[in-house]
Amino acid sequence: MSDSQDAGRSVTLGLMCGGNGKVEDAQVALDDAIEAGYSFMVTQLVRYPRAGGKGSGASSSRSSSGGVVSAAVPEGLTHSDLVLRDLQNANCFVGIIGDWLDLAYSGAQVGGEDVKHSAAELKRELEWAIYLGLPAVLLNSLPDSASALAHLAMLTVDSFHTIQLQFRNLWVRLSVDSNEDLRKFATFLTLAAPVSSFVGVLLELTPELPDAGMLARWRGEPVRGVLVPTSLFVKNKAGYPVLLRAHQAFVKSMIEIGAQIIVQTTDGTPASEAAAYAEYVEHLASTMEPSPVGGYEDELQAPLQPLQDNLESTTYETFERDAPKYKLYRKAVRRALADLPDNLSVPGQEPKAPYVVMVLGGGRGPLVAASLAAAVEAGRAIKVYCVEKNPSALLTLQMRAEAEWGGLVEVIGSDMRAWQPTELADIIVSELLGSFGDNELSPECLDGAQRLLKPGGISIPASYTSYAAPISAHKLHTELQRTTSSSPSVEINMQTPYVVYFSNVHVLDAPLPVFTFDHPNADIAAGGMADNTRFTSLSFTLPHDATIHGFAGYFDCVLYKDVVMSINPESHTPDMYSWFPIYFPILEPIHGKAGEPVELHIWRKTTTSKVWYEWAFTSPVPTRVHNPKGTSSHIGL
Amino acid sequence: MSDSQDAGRSVTLGLMCGGNGKVEDAQVALDDAIEAGYSFMVTQLVRYPRAGGKGSGASSSRSSSGGVVSAAVPEGLTHSDLVLRDLQNANCFVGIIGDWLDLAYSGAQVGGEDVKHSAAELKRELEWAIYLGLPAVLLNSLPDSASALAHLAMLTVDSFHTIQLQFRNLWVRLSVDSNEDLRKFATFLTLAAPVSSFVGVLLELTPELPDAGMLARWRGEPVRGVLVPTSLFVKNKAGYPVLLRAHQAFVKSMIEIGAQIIVQTTDGTPASEAAAYAEYVEHLASTMEPSPVGGYEDELQAPLQPLQDNLESTTYETFERDAPKYKLYRKAVRRALADLPDNLSVPGQEPKAPYVVMVLGGGRGPLVAASLAAAVEAGRAIKVYCVEKNPSALLTLQMRAEAEWGGLVEVIGSDMRAWQPTELADIIVSELLGSFGDNELSPECLDGAQRLLKPGGISIPASYTSYAAPISAHKLHTELQRTTSSSPSVEINMQTPYVVYFSNVHVLDAPLPVFTFDHPNADIAAGGMADNTRFTSLSFTLPHDATIHGFAGYFDCVLYKDVVMSINPESHTPDMYSWFPIYFPILEPIHGKAGEPVELHIWRKTTTSKVWYEWAFTSPVPTRVHNPKGTSSHIGL
Repeated sequence: MSDSQDAGRSVTLGLMCGGNGKVEDAQVALDDAIEAGYSFMVTQLVRYPRAGGKGSGASSSRSSSGGVVSAAVPEGLTHSDLVLRDLQNANCFVGIIGDWLDLAYSGAQVGGEDVKHSAAELKRELEWAIYLGLPAVLLNSLPDSASALAHLAMLTVDSFHTIQLQFRNLWVRLSVDSNEDLRKFATFLTLAAPVSSFVGVLLELTPELPDAGMLARWRGEPVRGVLVPTSLFVKNKAGYPVLLRAHQAFVKSMIEIGAQIIVQTTDGTPASEAAAYAEYVEHLASTMEPSPVGGYEDELQAPLQPLQDNLESTTYETFERDAPKYKLYRKAVRRALADLPDNLSVPGQEPKAPYVVMVLGGGRGPLVAASLAAAVEAGRAIKVYCVEKNPSALLTLQMRAEAEWGGLVEVIGSDMRAWQPTELADIIVSELLGSFGDNELSPECLDGAQRLLKPGGISIPASYTSYAAPISAHKLHTELQRTTSSSPSVEINMQTPYVVYFSNVHVLDAPLPVFTFDHPNADIAAGGMADNTRFTSLSFTLPHDATIHGFAGYFDCVLYKDVVMSINPESHTPDMYSWFPIYFPILEPIHGKAGEPVELHIWRKTTTSKVWYEWAFTSPVPTRVHNPKGTSSHIGL
Repeated sequence: MSDSQDAGRSVTLGLMCGGNGKVEDAQVALDDAIEAGYSFMVTQLVRYPRAGGKGSGASSSRSSSGGVVSAAVPEGLTHSDLVLRDLQNANCFVGIIGDWLDLAYSGAQVGGEDVKHSAAELKRELEWAIYLGLPAVLLNSLPDSASALAHLAMLTVDSFHTIQLQFRNLWVRLSVDSNEDLRKFATFLTLAAPVSSFVGVLLELTPELPDAGMLARWRGEPVRGVLVPTSLFVKNKAGYPVLLRAHQAFVKSMIEIGAQIIVQTTDGTPASEAAAYAEYVEHLASTMEPSPVGGYEDELQAPLQPLQDNLESTTYETFERDAPKYKLYRKAVRRALADLPDNLSVPGQEPKAPYVVMVLGGGRGPLVAASLAAAVEAGRAIKVYCVEKNPSALLTLQMRAEAEWGGLVEVIGSDMRAWQPTELADIIVSELLGSFGDNELSPECLDGAQRLLKPGGISIPASYTSYAAPISAHKLHTELQRTTSSSPSVEINMQTPYVVYFSNVHVLDAPLPVFTFDHPNADIAAGGMADNTRFTSLSFTLPHDATIHGFAGYFDCVLYKDVVMSINPESHTPDMYSWFPIYFPILEPIHGKAGEPVELHIWRKTTTSKVWYEWAFTSPVPTRVHNPKGTSSHIGL
């Protein structure tokens, strides 16, 4: 089956033996697992109960002062306690720690011995895992009591603050159908906020999967691994183990967000048998669509600033390859031209004037080509002016004008807001939209160019509308907590929108329209000034308890009449990839409960030199107004 | 009545004429008000409806694009619109702005014209107030809709970010009995977080005051002024206006937290009549207890670090004047000595050995004096060793030993943890407690000194317990947002405890015990090691909707048997002032609803070189674990 691995997605496979990852000899077990097609194992770090009963929760000797005297703390690990010892392949093991915690926490008294005992023990196991150099450790459950959960979070912060960078992965095992697990995990992530980017989920599948809504919630969580018990497999006609359709679909969706798959065998399953599960999961991954963005899922990018910066040729090239987009433009221009009276010159009659089409922001010419093709299709004569400010792109345009476009196209090197034309346009065509519609200053540019259009002339696009929806996106949010030389402070990062291909993101409600801009602008047409400031308030409803990390932005756009393009997920133009969504973060995640309203307020503000957004939530919990006065992020005019 | 102003509290009086502060001629009105005993006036800034009906909410001309064209925005203020013009005494006016907002906001559509119109108008009025140099402006109400509230907050942030420092006070008028007003205000403060320290409350009294619980809530809010309508006054027998007892008590409590009192007359009240109200309020203030801390209410101080730093003489002097404290110490030593067998030497019999009393951390000697007095009272012979590490304090001790204490006291210049005595103590006496009990390292010091005590010997204090309670304290929290050279970052400020005399603070539930330490330590007595780390979880209940800004810390202490001293408000030792409470902040305020549990988790952690606390809430909303590893604050050993 290895030949099929080139297609589809790749997946990393892990093996966990038995209910709690018990193995007799870790080295032998790993060799068998690798032989069976797995890359790593999830095993116990320490054997429980430990020799001498030290692993049991309560320590017997309590001091009268309420503290624990050192003698009462279980002694350090001994060699016979260890499952994982010094290994050559330590990087192939995820070690289960604190497997005795259930016991300890269930008896935990507030401020009592049990919690303290657990702390000492957990720390000892973590230290051993660090010493071994394991890539991650796994906690099999989160405690139920707030007290124990807080204490566990404190220990996590404590440990992860000091230890080496290579060891910074704590996996927590949660059940796919447990609302309660998710609630505890959200609390845990908040408590452990300074190190929460190192905390991930090992998601255990259940025979009966929960409803689609519950499954969707996991998309926003940092799922590092999916635990698939072999009991969930059924035999197909050929006798090979396969998953039922619902499990298949969910496993695929988790592979899509980068989760590893860990097969959990029952005690005593021979390694040879385990191979069949590995083959199946690899086959499943191979049948998936490859990543449309070549692994750039969830990468945060600053939006383009096309007015301030000149684009590079490769950037143009990438966008020009988006065939569905230019097909829509060609259709829009064709329909607009077709709505104008026939102007083809008839031999022997007086020649009619061609319609003037101005392409504003021509780039390397795709809209010129689309317009010329549209004119042929519509049976109309046109003359094209192509306005472009980027001197490098101009060179390409001039070459194409001479080589491809005969005398039909005049190339103008100018900012569209400054150019003085000799005649006015019947149609202006532009592609100035950003992921949030107006966020690359299309309104300001087209308002400035409106004087190029004849009264009653047509703008393609005719209008565009931005959309927003609250999202749960732990991964994106924690990514912004890392400051680098190019991101000077967390405060600024968290008040800046980013273009990002969503993968490990859960959109919490259907997107709602935010701001609409129409072209030509009626106020300008009436001799007034355009006001491109906006303010709107949106109201969503939480389908379930959720942590909100900000909101997603999209747009749709009427090019001409019913010719529409959209990146709103509810109506996305098929196969159009020029725009990814935009992510507006908030400084601190907020928590809401199922059914609670989410009130989001967004401003678009302008000065003569810049445009920016401000945003705030007032429900389920109020946040501050983000990016006041554009101090963290703006687009330069 | 002016002679009585030297006693009690001082109060600043303002006057507001009529329901909405309307005056015909501001200069004349101010002269009259000052004549009547007031220091400032609250008046309209602008006359409404403005000339030409510009003050009405909706603008009539809407643009087709959904924006507002400039022509539709009401024109700038004209001279005839102004109530407050260029004045010599601009600093004596609080200007009411946006008095038309009720109208505008009630008709506000999401994203609609009304809100935009209001923005332009509000900005114009703010600019005028800035130009005049008014010390504050007043908004007569907060809008009901989340949309309008968010917009108002955005405008507030916008305006206060740019304008001069001297003008940074926005008062919002709220009704004393309105839960809804408080809720809106909490949301507003969060939205406007970056400038929230400039936002205050003008609290309007109602004829029927709400219950004590509701009144108490205002203690935690930034109440800058209390508005007292003259209709609330009744005539006393002599014909003078007075307030009823409930109003009196509440007005006093607000004067205590520094609020100004604004008397609101009905339209047409002559200035001469207004004087009687001013006199009454001044009289009321004069009957109050003077500030016990001379105006240092709500001042945040870093806790003492007596082990790291040597105290100054004036610090000792301040503490030594606390008579109730040393009376309790004298009583405790007397009772402890009285419980020991009589050892007075009888003439003719063999002389008995005196009891050895060691004063650990003698300072300038108050505990030595208390112990000597106690011995006389108890009829016991003692010898005192006074151990002190501060070389300057030692000089004082040596002088007193020679001049006052005969041969009964031996002064030892040493750290109590290092001193090697020639004999052991029957009683050790110390005063090493901080506001949170163990936070000045009493446990570590006394554990280190325990070897000085005979087996079965007595420690005074015998035990102490810290207490905590969640608080609402907007003023303290915003104070920590200001970074100065000595407070390097907001992150550090918010993870550091501060000693502070609470005034503008509302304690949300009865304090609960946190950590207890007993001396002598039984573990050490048994030959083991002391463990002074602690962890506890506390559960409170919110009596009403509240914003939580952290928690208050207190302690009580058993000196000996039933001799107890306490700064827990529930059992505070009368007139003892050596300790103010301690305030543990949290990074972001959290909001909870009436009846919700408040779960607070506190750790005391130690290394060989330092001691620190960590803390977190898990309910009503989880917070991060604060001060992990003592990175923001610790006490050096």
